[in-house]
Amino acid sequence: MTNFDFYAPTYFAFGKDKENEAGKLVKRFGGSKVLIHFGGGSVVRSGLLDRVKKSLEAEAIPYIELGGVMPNPRSGLVYQGIDLCRKEGVDFILAVGGGSTIDSSKAIAAGVVYDGDFWDFYLGKPVTKALPIGTVLTIAAAGSEGSPDSVITLEDGMLKRGASGEAYRPKFSILNPALTQTLPPYQTACGITDIICHLYERYLTNTPDVETTDRMIEGLILAMITEGPKVMKNPDDYEARANIMWAGMMAHNNSCGVGRSQDWTSHNLEHELSAKYDCAHGAGLAVAMPAVFKYTMKHDVNRFAKIAVRVWGCQMDFENPETTALQGIERLKQFLISIGMPVTFAQLGAKAEDIPELAHKVLVHGDEVNDTLWGFTQMSKDDIVKIYELML
Amino acid sequence: MTNFDFYAPTYFAFGKDKENEAGKLVKRFGGSKVLIHFGGGSVVRSGLLDRVKKSLEAEAIPYIELGGVMPNPRSGLVYQGIDLCRKEGVDFILAVGGGSTIDSSKAIAAGVVYDGDFWDFYLGKPVTKALPIGTVLTIAAAGSEGSPDSVITLEDGMLKRGASGEAYRPKFSILNPALTQTLPPYQTACGITDIICHLYERYLTNTPDVETTDRMIEGLILAMITEGPKVMKNPDDYEARANIMWAGMMAHNNSCGVGRSQDWTSHNLEHELSAKYDCAHGAGLAVAMPAVFKYTMKHDVNRFAKIAVRVWGCQMDFENPETTALQGIERLKQFLISIGMPVTFAQLGAKAEDIPELAHKVLVHGDEVNDTLWGFTQMSKDDIVKIYELML
Repeated sequence: MTNFDFYAPTYFAFGKDKENEAGKLVKRFGGSKVLIHFGGGSVVRSGLLDRVKKSLEAEAIPYIELGGVMPNPRSGLVYQGIDLCRKEGVDFILAVGGGSTIDSSKAIAAGVVYDGDFWDFYLGKPVTKALPIGTVLTIAAAGSEGSPDSVITLEDGMLKRGASGEAYRPKFSILNPALTQTLPPYQTACGITDIICHLYERYLTNTPDVETTDRMIEGLILAMITEGPKVMKNPDDYEARANIMWAGMMAHNNSCGVGRSQDWTSHNLEHELSAKYDCAHGAGLAVAMPAVFKYTMKHDVNRFAKIAVRVWGCQMDFENPETTALQGIERLKQFLISIGMPVTFAQLGAKAEDIPELAHKVLVHGDEVNDTLWGFTQMSKDDIVKIYELML
Repeated sequence: MTNFDFYAPTYFAFGKDKENEAGKLVKRFGGSKVLIHFGGGSVVRSGLLDRVKKSLEAEAIPYIELGGVMPNPRSGLVYQGIDLCRKEGVDFILAVGGGSTIDSSKAIAAGVVYDGDFWDFYLGKPVTKALPIGTVLTIAAAGSEGSPDSVITLEDGMLKRGASGEAYRPKFSILNPALTQTLPPYQTACGITDIICHLYERYLTNTPDVETTDRMIEGLILAMITEGPKVMKNPDDYEARANIMWAGMMAHNNSCGVGRSQDWTSHNLEHELSAKYDCAHGAGLAVAMPAVFKYTMKHDVNRFAKIAVRVWGCQMDFENPETTALQGIERLKQFLISIGMPVTFAQLGAKAEDIPELAHKVLVHGDEVNDTLWGFTQMSKDDIVKIYELML
């Protein structure tokens, strides 16, 4: 294990009706004027937004509202939010929604207290200062409710990039599994896929001797394999929703990823898919993962065989571990299909002729174009093209 | 899953040489005058105490020292520490040592800012206020470095009791696995046993549908089964020490225990053993666990069969799950023996004729004597006597 620092001071209020504690928690963490940030009409229609507002009113905390966050959240609304917060003297951002809403809230939170362009953080500047953020989560997926990360799409050029920093960890997150019961099945499945990907990309490490975090990751994927199909079959299964919701947070707060190198190739390749085709992030990951894993498998066959045996229940082929490794990837793919995810370019609406452009954009970093993408393995543009071709 | 709140805002600095950051971390978390609390001479002899002092001096933070914490830390030193801190105007407690030193530090931290007797907290009063605490951990075991818990023995009557409260979570904990390399093998094994017990006592739940936390617990025990024997064979194995150290924290910060009932019977029965015979806590747990589990197994045979299959690699006997459940308990016992732990009263120096007294003390709560001990199952004094008899 490599040296690391780990600090995850987010307060989690988990369970039924917990959204009614939003006001108390904003107060506890020092908010005196709040921006409620949200997406489309579903949080309005479900009455969730009203319940959150009431809990703020009960604590006499004034608030303003900014809706309209879309999946793959855009820079335009972030700029708008920053202006609004400055004008209104907002000192706390409350995200009511999923990963996109939380990520947009984080970008606004950093932008408000920064003199330059917030996009600087998405070009690699560490986020050291931001307004405090709270969340009321409505989809178990991105893990943004407990992570120091945010992903935004810059409308000028449709580049999708991530930013990180301890100031991005929410002060509190309210996780009520019942709020996820009304999600369409496709979005539920996208969330499950995102969670599994967060776990795989931590699993694919070049750091030796990391059995404790390996076992934690394996355990969390196993829980998704059991609980995922339950909610696909019965969307009202509160208990399965609860298991997925806690797993989604644990998958990405990094307690199972500390002290080890990680691999974010699937996420990097996916970001160009959802930026270009505006597909759901989880759907893009379902297409990307099997291709990435097949391509990189030979870098460490035993690691892929290990997850195949321990997670996917494959029998170890001791004469030919590669067979086992491949079988594990195939079982992952079949699992994704079974919960209704796309696994090909065509199913996603992506086009073969765009591959050179996609591969180019993966390597674009600000004004520069890198030669190599670093992760589990080192990849050239040619490698990236070949992986996209495996998705056809 | 039941509703819960989870808040674990401890900053972890993990890895080689991290103790040199103690001064910076004390400063970050607002300490301006420090009590360094420690145990015996090993932290002096190893030079650790000097390194910690130097890091405080580098930040110009004044400190005083109080050594002498013993395993099963006593109330006498706590009272002494409280007086000392008040007299010297200490505002931060830095524990340098293992669980006993950290627990003693927590008791002092609560006592300094409380008008009454600190023992009130160990009779059930929640700890809501305490001086901030930092730790430099020297043994992976108690998990106190990341938990809101503390256990102290009251010298008057030798009662060993626990206290809890969010104010007991350390502000920071420094985890350098290299510091544990010089531990005697017996203490290392005691630590491993304590960690496994923290996991088992969370596993034994009456809450249905807790697959995510079940899988996390199973994964952490599996890691201990792999890494434990490595350090017993080669005490200098830094990597195995590192895996055990992170697992020890994760086992007890409660992220794998949220939203489910827990069982602390083994700990409760052990506390009377170490209070009376002054044995190591881990050694007492090794004697207690198999007996407790055998006695309570019938309450939920399938849960014991599940851990037997998933963790101990037993084949499921579908015609008679009890056989599998028992086999799992037997494998746990053999594992404990393999790392050098005692598993009988005699090996511990405990005596059959003391059993009625031990069983009585388990039920003593302040001035009252309870009828029942609650945990995985409900137990009378007669049940407790029978469990102690199984340890003979």
